[in-house]
Order: sequence, then C-alpha cells, then structure tokens
Amino acid sequence: MTAFAVIGHRARTDGSWSLNDMPGGAGRMDVLCRAVTASFFLSHDLRRDVVCYLVLRGEPGPEKTVRFEGDRVRYLNPDERSSGSLIQKALALSCGTEFRASTKGVSVREGGLARLLDEHAFALLDEGGADVRAAGALPDAFLVSDHMNLDEEELVLTADLPRFSVGPRSLHGDHAITLLLNELDRRAV
Amino acid sequence: MTAFAVIGHRARTDGSWSLNDMPGGAGRMDVLCRAVTASFFLSHDLRRDVVCYLVLRGEPGPEKTVRFEGDRVRYLNPDERSSGSLIQKALALSCGTEFRASTKGVSVREGGLARLLDEHAFALLDEGGADVRAAGALPDAFLVSDHMNLDEEELVLTADLPRFSVGPRSLHGDHAITLLLNELDRRAV
Repeated sequence: MTAFAVIGHRARTDGSWSLNDMPGGAGRMDVLCRAVTASFFLSHDLRRDVVCYLVLRGEPGPEKTVRFEGDRVRYLNPDERSSGSLIQKALALSCGTEFRASTKGVSVREGGLARLLDEHAFALLDEGGADVRAAGALPDAFLVSDHMNLDEEELVLTADLPRFSVGPRSLHGDHAITLLLNELDRRAV
Repeated sequence: MTAFAVIGHRARTDGSWSLNDMPGGAGRMDVLCRAVTASFFLSHDLRRDVVCYLVLRGEPGPEKTVRFEGDRVRYLNPDERSSGSLIQKALALSCGTEFRASTKGVSVREGGLARLLDEHAFALLDEGGADVRAAGALPDAFLVSDHMNLDEEELVLTADLPRFSVGPRSLHGDHAITLLLNELDRRAV
C-alpha cells in the first residue's frame, strides 16, 4: 500500500463551489483533482493499492481531510470534474473526527496534517530531497504540497521527515506523484 | 525543442461541445487536455521548448490538428477547462491546410497524422518499446495514443517508427509524457 497526502492550502472545506470554477472559487481544487487522477489511474485500470489523502486548509474551515481508497473507490473517472464531484459530495457531508464515507471509497473527517503524520511514516516530495532513482528502500507514504510552499506551521510539522526528489525541475504535485509511482512500479518488477 | 503528438480517436473536430462534458460529448477531449498540461507545465513556469499537436479524428470530420507552442502560448492554465477552452476556440475557427492561429500560441489546420509524420521524426511511446531509461540518444518527437489503441491505418503509418516505453505498466498518455519529459530533464542536467 502506498499513501499520498496532498496539502490544499486554499481548498474550500465546504461544498459551496462550482465544478466549473475549481481553480478559482474552490481554492485550486483542480490541483487536488489532478493529484487524485495521478494517484490511481492506469490505462483502463486503477491502482488498488494506493490511498490518497487531500488535506483541505481553505475557507471556511476547520480543516478537513478527504480520503480516496483505491481498493474501494467507485464512480471515479480520470477527468477533473469526476474527482471534483466526489470531493464536493464528501464536503457536503457533515463529519466529525473519524472518517465517514460519502461515496464508495471516499470519506471525510475533520483534522489535517498533524493527525496524518501520526498515522503514516510520510516522506516529503521536495525538489531538494534525495533522488528517488538513486535512493535505497523508499517509504510507502509521500506528502506533496499544492501550488504553494509549505507554511511555517507545516514546516515545523515536517521538519524531521525524509525528503525525496523526483528530478531536477520543480514540478506540479500530480506530476511528482506520477514519477514516484513509476519508480515504485520499476522496483516492483 | 521536443514535440508531442496525441491522437484523439473520437475527439470532435468542431466546437459544438460543452466544457462541462469533455469526456462525453467532446469525444474524450479531457484526455487531450491533460496531455497539454503534461507537455507544458512546470511549477510556476511553462516549458517553452515544447510543442504539442493534438490530432482530432472524431466527428464531424475531416480530421484536424491543433498545435500548442510553448514559446508563444498565452492564457493557458493547468486545469482541463483551460486547455479545453483554447481547443474549442481553435475548432471554432475555419481553417485550411496551413496552421491558422486562434489564440496566441494555439493554431489549427486540417489534416492529421500522415502529414505530421512527414514533418517530424516521431518515435512512438508504447509499452512494448525500449525502456527510455536504458536507451541511448532519444528522439525529439513522440507520438502517444489516447485511451484507444492505434487503428489499422495508424498502425500502418507508424509501423517503422522507433518505440520507447516509460515503464512496466500501461499508463495514460499524459502520464507517459510526464515520465518522458523527466527523462529528458535528467539528461539535460
């Protein structure tokens, strides 16, 4: 099982946004949608051994975590609107501090990064990290930021995490996920 | 300069489709939109040395080619609706056999794969090809299919092309583009 967590710094925590305006009114929800697609989609298949957490830190708060589980998820297509729709359904559900399913394989809870870091031994995908191609054993949980850098609180929380890089250029989070999964695929052969 | 060409087997050749239904009524235009994003986007930057051709082979025909040029393109954001909107504007333009600009850095002409193959020395990204990591010099033009396999006509046209694979799993075209660009980035360091 491989876990990804993506921080959406401005991603709305309620469902009051339009699927037609995910980059704007939804707080760059499009970035998180692409991370979901990158985490799960193979050609005509899904990666059943992946779980993807979206940490939504935008308005109106408090922050929430949406979880996609590859071994259970249904109704997920690779286009942004598809994952956006499932995220929106999750955010429309009232939730507490434990994950509550909104659709098959998608669930939501209150809380964010601090709790996730207690639950998985995350590494940070970071352009300053060790090259994944040259690394020894890789961890099975990876944290990615959205279009914004980690803020001070996140930097403190992640200060001790191992850091890995997927290449020499600074990339979008979903592209980093694709590259990391390719490295894992190659090691699994 | 690196060129990508993506074949959209069912992608509509006119602009009479909705940005809200790109996987359906537009003939899996979402696949082509993601290929555009993968071709150009770096974190807070664009790959100016990439050109991406979309070969639209769906209804109503005749087939058209939409070209995105990284050194000229404007108004392009990474979400699917953004590239979809630029594709739609290109398809709304009447065009002949030479590229005609619809917006900055986006242009369209009639014609498809056969003509592109005369203009660039393409290789085919194909899961049965040679591993790009182990390959010697790589070409500078790569052909990718959408969610469908190459048809008989395309197989004949591409029979003599070199073939490269980006990894052991069968992937979406945009993910293959991300992986290929990463390999080129690493070689350019």
